[in-house]
Amino acid sequence: MLGPGDDAAVLSAPDGRVVVSTDVLIEGRHFRRDWSSGYDVGRKAAAQNLSDVAAMGATPTSIVVGLGIPADLPLTWLDELTDGFVDECATVGASVAGGDVTRCDLVVIGVTALGDLGGRAPVTRSGARPGHVVAVTGRLGYAAAGWALLEAGVPVDSPALREAVAGHRRPCPPYAMGPLAAELGASAMLDVSDGFLQDVGHIAEAAGVRVELDPRAFTVAEPVAAAAKELGADPLEWVLSGGEDHALAATFPPDVRLPASWQVVGRVVEGEGVLVYGREIGRRGWDHFR
Amino acid sequence: MLGPGDDAAVLSAPDGRVVVSTDVLIEGRHFRRDWSSGYDVGRKAAAQNLSDVAAMGATPTSIVVGLGIPADLPLTWLDELTDGFVDECATVGASVAGGDVTRCDLVVIGVTALGDLGGRAPVTRSGARPGHVVAVTGRLGYAAAGWALLEAGVPVDSPALREAVAGHRRPCPPYAMGPLAAELGASAMLDVSDGFLQDVGHIAEAAGVRVELDPRAFTVAEPVAAAAKELGADPLEWVLSGGEDHALAATFPPDVRLPASWQVVGRVVEGEGVLVYGREIGRRGWDHFR
Repeated sequence: MLGPGDDAAVLSAPDGRVVVSTDVLIEGRHFRRDWSSGYDVGRKAAAQNLSDVAAMGATPTSIVVGLGIPADLPLTWLDELTDGFVDECATVGASVAGGDVTRCDLVVIGVTALGDLGGRAPVTRSGARPGHVVAVTGRLGYAAAGWALLEAGVPVDSPALREAVAGHRRPCPPYAMGPLAAELGASAMLDVSDGFLQDVGHIAEAAGVRVELDPRAFTVAEPVAAAAKELGADPLEWVLSGGEDHALAATFPPDVRLPASWQVVGRVVEGEGVLVYGREIGRRGWDHFR
Repeated sequence: MLGPGDDAAVLSAPDGRVVVSTDVLIEGRHFRRDWSSGYDVGRKAAAQNLSDVAAMGATPTSIVVGLGIPADLPLTWLDELTDGFVDECATVGASVAGGDVTRCDLVVIGVTALGDLGGRAPVTRSGARPGHVVAVTGRLGYAAAGWALLEAGVPVDSPALREAVAGHRRPCPPYAMGPLAAELGASAMLDVSDGFLQDVGHIAEAAGVRVELDPRAFTVAEPVAAAAKELGADPLEWVLSGGEDHALAATFPPDVRLPASWQVVGRVVEGEGVLVYGREIGRRGWDHFR
């Protein structure tokens, strides 16, 4: 309704409620300028916040951005970053509503995303009940595989390996599945940012239930399998423990008919913690698993 | 409606619109840990964003915070910071709705504030018309005076000097005057964050008008006068060019009866730029003035 150029932006919130998520990305910790272009970083920074909004069952509507940038940052990098914000927002029909830029010794990116629930109840982390199924949609393991390839410095010379590296640089969250899951009656949902086992542990903890996973039910996508073969790694560890792909994990009552894009990978039972391979993962999640 | 602990917060937006402002504060640039406590920094970081929301004519409702913190930051500092966010929000009835914390080599604080227009039209920067008056409410010069005292390292041994230093550490924005000005029919408004001359220049530029200021109409508060005397400085320069006090500057049609808390300091005429002491300040604002 009123965008950049004033003290604040004015955004439409037709639902009477607004969903808000914020994250800070720090150069060297969340991205490296020698590994990712400004455009990639912009896409990724926007994606991880838009995905948080979708994980509540809302449709993302806009982002505002606070930037800290070094005096010697090439202007082209900043232009690319902005293009990345705009293009990632465009994939969900959202817009960049405003921002703030200041000097900093390293690149710091604060993104706040807003979204609209369209009359739906928000899907929190705490509604999983015994008997519900655990399902996932979106990519798992791409970002971890791509990061491992870059870290190892091996030649990225096949389409599959290039897709894994691209998955690290730029996630591809299944945004539309968030509102859809809310409409289907998801009892709990979150976006997989730290790793599936760790994040699904939050669902178990929030509801006081146990999640039992069937590791054979997870798909290992070809780019993840190819990277694992190249590096002699276990691809399922990336799938179960890798973060930053921003898949959506949710629980549903057993009578819900899920679209094919959701894979059932486990079930909710009485108890606590997360069980996979007959082993309890516990509160510390993937740290223990590794 | 739903606060910290999930992927995103859900906030009430009864107006059907939401006002959003974001800023990033960087340690060493916007605050120094040896000059300001965590509590002061929290108050200041919240204040500058809540003030942006008020400057649109909205009532601030909540903030979300993204933090980058060094591994060796004392936990007490972080607790104080959070207390500062909460207490500053409480002064306007707003709340801290959520946040994100990550590691960074220096303290980075991204604050996004949201607000509600309560059915009012937002007051932008662009509505000033020839014949309108220019008015200001809130403090001017305190933060600049306090900063100069700390920078000079002189003893701060009187109540007036202590108040100037406190004004640097913790602004005191006239939040309630924002919605009030909107109700009174303000034609343009902004919060004074960079310095009165520079910021009022944005109003002139946005509307294609000239602002003529009467320097004798500005009050020099006692703490500002005392600091100027201590340092042999010109207090009016701090009043006109100092930033970070987050006063509100606005223009009003000439028939509006302003409450006593607003001081008329100039008028809007045909032309461009800002005129003070018979000199044109121009687009580069206080840089030229100094």
